[in-house]
Amino acid sequence: MAWIEHLKPVTQLDSPAAHKNPPQKPLNVAILGFGTVGSSVARILTEHPPSGLRLTQICNRGVKRKQVDWVPKNVRWTEDFQDVLKSDADIVVELIGGLEPAGEWVRSSLQSGKSVVTANKQLIARHGTELVRLARQHKAHIAFGASVAGGIPVISGLQEGLAGDELVQLCGILNGTCNYILTRIESAGVSFADALKEAQKLGFAEADPTEDVDGLDARAKLTILARTGLRVSVNPLDIPARSIRALEPVDFDYAKLLDCTIRQISRAEKTADRLFASVQPTLVHRDSPLAGVEGGQNLVMSTGKFGGETVFAGHGAGGNPTAVAVVSDLIAIQRSRQINGVALKENEDEVGGAGLPTNSPVSSDFTSRHYLRFTVKDEPGIIASLATIFCRSGINIDSVFQKPGYPKSRLPFVITLEPCPTSLLEESLKHIAQLEFMVQPCVSLPILD
Amino acid sequence: MAWIEHLKPVTQLDSPAAHKNPPQKPLNVAILGFGTVGSSVARILTEHPPSGLRLTQICNRGVKRKQVDWVPKNVRWTEDFQDVLKSDADIVVELIGGLEPAGEWVRSSLQSGKSVVTANKQLIARHGTELVRLARQHKAHIAFGASVAGGIPVISGLQEGLAGDELVQLCGILNGTCNYILTRIESAGVSFADALKEAQKLGFAEADPTEDVDGLDARAKLTILARTGLRVSVNPLDIPARSIRALEPVDFDYAKLLDCTIRQISRAEKTADRLFASVQPTLVHRDSPLAGVEGGQNLVMSTGKFGGETVFAGHGAGGNPTAVAVVSDLIAIQRSRQINGVALKENEDEVGGAGLPTNSPVSSDFTSRHYLRFTVKDEPGIIASLATIFCRSGINIDSVFQKPGYPKSRLPFVITLEPCPTSLLEESLKHIAQLEFMVQPCVSLPILD
Repeated sequence: MAWIEHLKPVTQLDSPAAHKNPPQKPLNVAILGFGTVGSSVARILTEHPPSGLRLTQICNRGVKRKQVDWVPKNVRWTEDFQDVLKSDADIVVELIGGLEPAGEWVRSSLQSGKSVVTANKQLIARHGTELVRLARQHKAHIAFGASVAGGIPVISGLQEGLAGDELVQLCGILNGTCNYILTRIESAGVSFADALKEAQKLGFAEADPTEDVDGLDARAKLTILARTGLRVSVNPLDIPARSIRALEPVDFDYAKLLDCTIRQISRAEKTADRLFASVQPTLVHRDSPLAGVEGGQNLVMSTGKFGGETVFAGHGAGGNPTAVAVVSDLIAIQRSRQINGVALKENEDEVGGAGLPTNSPVSSDFTSRHYLRFTVKDEPGIIASLATIFCRSGINIDSVFQKPGYPKSRLPFVITLEPCPTSLLEESLKHIAQLEFMVQPCVSLPILD
Repeated sequence: MAWIEHLKPVTQLDSPAAHKNPPQKPLNVAILGFGTVGSSVARILTEHPPSGLRLTQICNRGVKRKQVDWVPKNVRWTEDFQDVLKSDADIVVELIGGLEPAGEWVRSSLQSGKSVVTANKQLIARHGTELVRLARQHKAHIAFGASVAGGIPVISGLQEGLAGDELVQLCGILNGTCNYILTRIESAGVSFADALKEAQKLGFAEADPTEDVDGLDARAKLTILARTGLRVSVNPLDIPARSIRALEPVDFDYAKLLDCTIRQISRAEKTADRLFASVQPTLVHRDSPLAGVEGGQNLVMSTGKFGGETVFAGHGAGGNPTAVAVVSDLIAIQRSRQINGVALKENEDEVGGAGLPTNSPVSSDFTSRHYLRFTVKDEPGIIASLATIFCRSGINIDSVFQKPGYPKSRLPFVITLEPCPTSLLEESLKHIAQLEFMVQPCVSLPILD
C-alpha cells in the first residue's frame, strides 16, 4: 500500500532500536508442487512478500513445462526433491498431496532440520501426531493450517483464539464439492449424476469423485479438527463416512416441508469416554448457519464449555484461499523464529492442560431425530408394517409426509422419527429392507437439532 | 477430561526431555475488576487452569462485598491498585473499562514490566498504538482479543490466520445490544423505545444506552479491527456513527419488500489514500450472513485480496465468552514467554510488510444504493418534487414503494436510489428537509450490496 509506506509512522516504532532483536537473515522457502496452490503461494510471496521470507526454490515433475517467467530469476527450479533436501531452504512447503512420496519428503525435510508447511490433509490426518513429534525432535516446525477449510483460519482459531475455552463439539461443512453438488440438486432439481457431471465440467470435482462424495476428504479434515480443537486423536479410518450418492431431488422437496435442507455434515463430539464422530448427509434447519453455506464454501462451528458457539466460514478451497493459509503459516513460523528457533506452535498441545491422546475410541452412534425416505410399491398397510417394526425397538414415529404426483409402483414418502440412537435405527432398517414392498433401500439421514 | 488423563500418551511426547525447555515458574495473574467478566475469568482459571498460569490477586472496590468462596484461599483480595503494582503479578487483567483510571493503571503496569490483557475497547481504540509501544519499550505484552466481539476469535484470526492475505475490507455486526433491539423491532413489531426497555429489563442494554444505540461502542471496536486487520490506524472520533433510534417497525416492513433486513453495520474499506469507515443502520440482503445474526450475536466479515471473504461469528458479549478471549490471550502470552520473554504478538505489526500508520484520513462517503423512508402529509406532486431535487444532483431513483393502510396526514413511503456517494445524497436531503409536506426527517439508510 503506497500510502502506508508514505505515512510510515512505523519508523517511530522502529527507533530507538535498543530493544529490538538484531536483524536476521530471511528464511528461505522451497515449494514442492507447482499446481494451483503452489503457483498461488509463489505469486503471493513474489507480489506481496512478507518480511523475513524469501522464495528460493520450486520443485515439480516436468519442471520445464511448469516454469513461469513472473517468478524472480534467482528462484531455482528442480525436478529432484534431493536438490531441495540438500539446499539452504529453511522451510519446505509440501503441496503435492497424497500419502507418498509426500510423507517421505516431509519426514526427510524435518529430519534435516527444515520446517514444513503442508496443505496435505490425508498425511496430517493419518500421521500428524508422529510428524509433530518428529518436528519437535529436530527443532523444526510443522504447520498445517491449509489442510482444513483452505483460507478459513479455523486451525489457528482453535489453537489460539479459543485456547482459553474447553471445546466439546465441532460441526461443519468441510467439502466444497459435496456442497456444490447438494446445492445444485436443491436449486436446479437435477439428479446427483447430473450435478456431479456439472461440477466436474466446472473443475469443482475430480474425474474420480470418490474422495469427495463418499466423505473420505471430509473425514480426514474432521480428524485434524478433532485433534486440534477437541484434543482427541483418532484414526480417520475409524470415522464412518457415508456417501451423498443416494440423494435425489425429492429428498430436498421433503426436507423443505420440514423447514430443512440437506448438507454433508462432519461432526465430532467429545464425551467422558469416547469421541462421537461421523461424516454424512444430514438435514439441517433453514435457520442454521450450515443451511446458508452455498456452492463451494465451507463452514465450521465449534461449541465451547464457556464461550458457546463460534462460527468460521469462507472459501474452503481454491488456489488463492489455500495459499493464504500456507503463507499465514509461513509468517507464523517466521515470527516464532524471530523469537527463538525452537518455537513450535504444535508443540504447545499440552499447554491447554489436556494431552494429545492417540487412537481414542470412536463411535458414530449419535442420538438424533431421523429422516427416512422410503420408495415403495404402494399397497395397503405399509405404514402399519413399518410402525410395527419401529415399535418393537421402542422407536417413535414423529411425522409422515407423502407428496402427490408419483407413480404407485415407485412411490417415495417420508417418515421422521423422534430422537433415537442411530444403531437402534439401523437394526430396524435391516428388517425393513426385507419387506416386499421396498423398491429401493431406505435413504436414512439424521436431522441436526 | 478424565479419560485424556487416563490415556496420557502425551507422556511419550514429554520424554525424552532433552529438547524441552526447562520447567518455568507459572506466571502470576492479577485481575482488576471483579464484575461479570472478571468473575468468569477467575472461574475458568480456577476450574480449568491452563498450565503455566496462576491466579494470585483480585482487585476491586468494596472488595469485602465482592469476595467469593470458590476462589482458592491463596488468592489475595485488595481494593488498592498499588497493591497489585507492588505485587509479584506477571500479568494484569484489566476489566474495569473506561478511559480512566483504567488507562493510568494499564500504563503503570506496563511501565513496571507487567504484561496486560484487557477487554477495554475504548482504551485500545483511543490509545492502542501508544500502549503497544509502551509495552514494547518495557519488554512486556499487551493483548486485547477480548476488546472486540467477545468470545469470537477475530483479533487472532486477523493477526495470525489471515496474516498471509492483504485485507482490504471489514464489515460486521459489533454491538449485540443494537442487534437485539433491531431483531426485536423486526420480529415483534414493537417500537424502538419498547424494544430498548425490553433489552434493559433483560440486562442486554445499560440504563444509559447511548454508547450502544448511537454506535460509539461499535465504532471503538471498528477502530481496533481496522488497525489489526487493515493495518490502518485512525482516531475513533473520526469515524461517523449514526444512531438506530430513528428506526420504526415500518422500516422493517419496507426492507422486507426489498428482500432485506436492517442491522447496525460497522464497515471499513482501505483504498489507496484513505480509510472509508462508518457505523450506521444499514439494509442488508436476506441472503447475507449479516441478516442471519440474531439477538445479541456478533459477526465479522473480512475481505482479502487473495482469500476473499471470511466470516467469524458467535457470542459477542457476556461474561463467559469474553472471559474465554481473556484466557486465550493469557495463554498466548504464556506460550510466547515459554519461548522468550520479549515475544510480543502486537510487536509484529510490521512483519506482514505493512506499517502501522497513525491518524490516517477517514471518510464515510461510501458510494452505495440508498433506502429513504419519507413521512409526509399527502398531497399531489410529492414524488415529482423529490425527483426534481434528486435529478439536479444527478441521483437516479431506482424504485418507489408505498404500503397501504397509513393515514394521509402521516404517510410513510420509501424511495430507493441507484448507487451514489452519501455526501451527494446528504446535500439533496438538506433541500428536501425544507419541503412543506415533510412531517418528520427522512430516514436514510445505505443498502449493502
